[in-house]
Amino acid sequence: MTKKKRIGVLLSGCGVYDGSEIHESVLLLLAVDRAGAEALCFAPNAPQRAVVNHLTGEEAAGERRNILVESARIARGKIRPIGDLRASEVDALILPGGFGAAKNLSDFASCGARCAVHSEVKRVIREIHAAGKPLGFICIAPAVAARVLGEERPKLTIGADPATAKALQEMGAEHVACGAQEIVEDPEKKIVSTPAYMLGKGIAEVADGIEKLVRRILAMA
Amino acid sequence: MTKKKRIGVLLSGCGVYDGSEIHESVLLLLAVDRAGAEALCFAPNAPQRAVVNHLTGEEAAGERRNILVESARIARGKIRPIGDLRASEVDALILPGGFGAAKNLSDFASCGARCAVHSEVKRVIREIHAAGKPLGFICIAPAVAARVLGEERPKLTIGADPATAKALQEMGAEHVACGAQEIVEDPEKKIVSTPAYMLGKGIAEVADGIEKLVRRILAMA
Repeated sequence: MTKKKRIGVLLSGCGVYDGSEIHESVLLLLAVDRAGAEALCFAPNAPQRAVVNHLTGEEAAGERRNILVESARIARGKIRPIGDLRASEVDALILPGGFGAAKNLSDFASCGARCAVHSEVKRVIREIHAAGKPLGFICIAPAVAARVLGEERPKLTIGADPATAKALQEMGAEHVACGAQEIVEDPEKKIVSTPAYMLGKGIAEVADGIEKLVRRILAMA
Repeated sequence: MTKKKRIGVLLSGCGVYDGSEIHESVLLLLAVDRAGAEALCFAPNAPQRAVVNHLTGEEAAGERRNILVESARIARGKIRPIGDLRASEVDALILPGGFGAAKNLSDFASCGARCAVHSEVKRVIREIHAAGKPLGFICIAPAVAARVLGEERPKLTIGADPATAKALQEMGAEHVACGAQEIVEDPEKKIVSTPAYMLGKGIAEVADGIEKLVRRILAMA
């Protein structure tokens, strides 16, 4: 029996407006399991930048939540701090979207092209990339890829909003538009991305794009 | 073009230990969308019975969260209070599992066969059932069905734990064992259930059972 491939899944909380987009995260875990691979979940052990009331869309002033603790809801408790992750432990790493990628893993939501990326997130992405292992970025998460690996001019997709695509290019990436059910691939750099809810009109469309991304990542791994 | 069938999805928070099981809820929304139907999400507008730290599994003493507000994370903000739901508005109703079904929709987790069900949840289940529309119950949620409709002796499945199955029978249900990838159907009463994470070893198994449940519910609706 061949050993299962291990896919690192980097979460950023639990909820589209202040953490990982829940549908994208679960669809990612489903696609990995259905492909016969194993998902290992990680998240930063740090306070969330904000807590958003998902019923009203407004910030819940004064509320405090921890990224790792909330991400554990999606991971059903099986999750470790991102600081623990070494490149040798996984065959690939995938980041789902949600504002958590732009508020907790980076500050792209407030700083755009001048954003900074969480130091352990940056380290892990660089180590896995340097080891020649594939990276996947879903929805808004390609902003993190552009910031960390922009010098290499990776091909990435991030939906149809011109300002967001422009910010990606300012960080060094080449933006390639594609539909929610499709992926954009940089085969040389082993980087795959899909727009997911940046464009997707429903969960089934988003699932199609994420399944394609996972299949491609596993083929490269 | 025929009108899309509308499936009510009754959530109970956001997280396996104090709300709706996130994977089950998302897999349910996926199966409904893929089948060409529309999901309408609802939850009680009331405080959660508890908040559980999903990293440690321990109760977060003193923390307060609202069931509707947390459920809105899974629904991406598109959700309404269960008190608003009338049977005429949906073609069926499905409850995912998670401890929220046994802590927030009912107090089955603490009271077992002597549990009470949230009054609006009870009303909605009774109205939809009386209208001859199908009901689906996932994971631990069949406990709610047994409490509300036990007098009719519905066939239900709730996994392999003898004490839980016994409690179901004490409430009037007939327990029928089945695997995580299967469903149990009471065709006369239009009630379908699947064990999901009561038995499932991984998300792909759970997805299979939930897809079958949705297909069957839609065929009955």
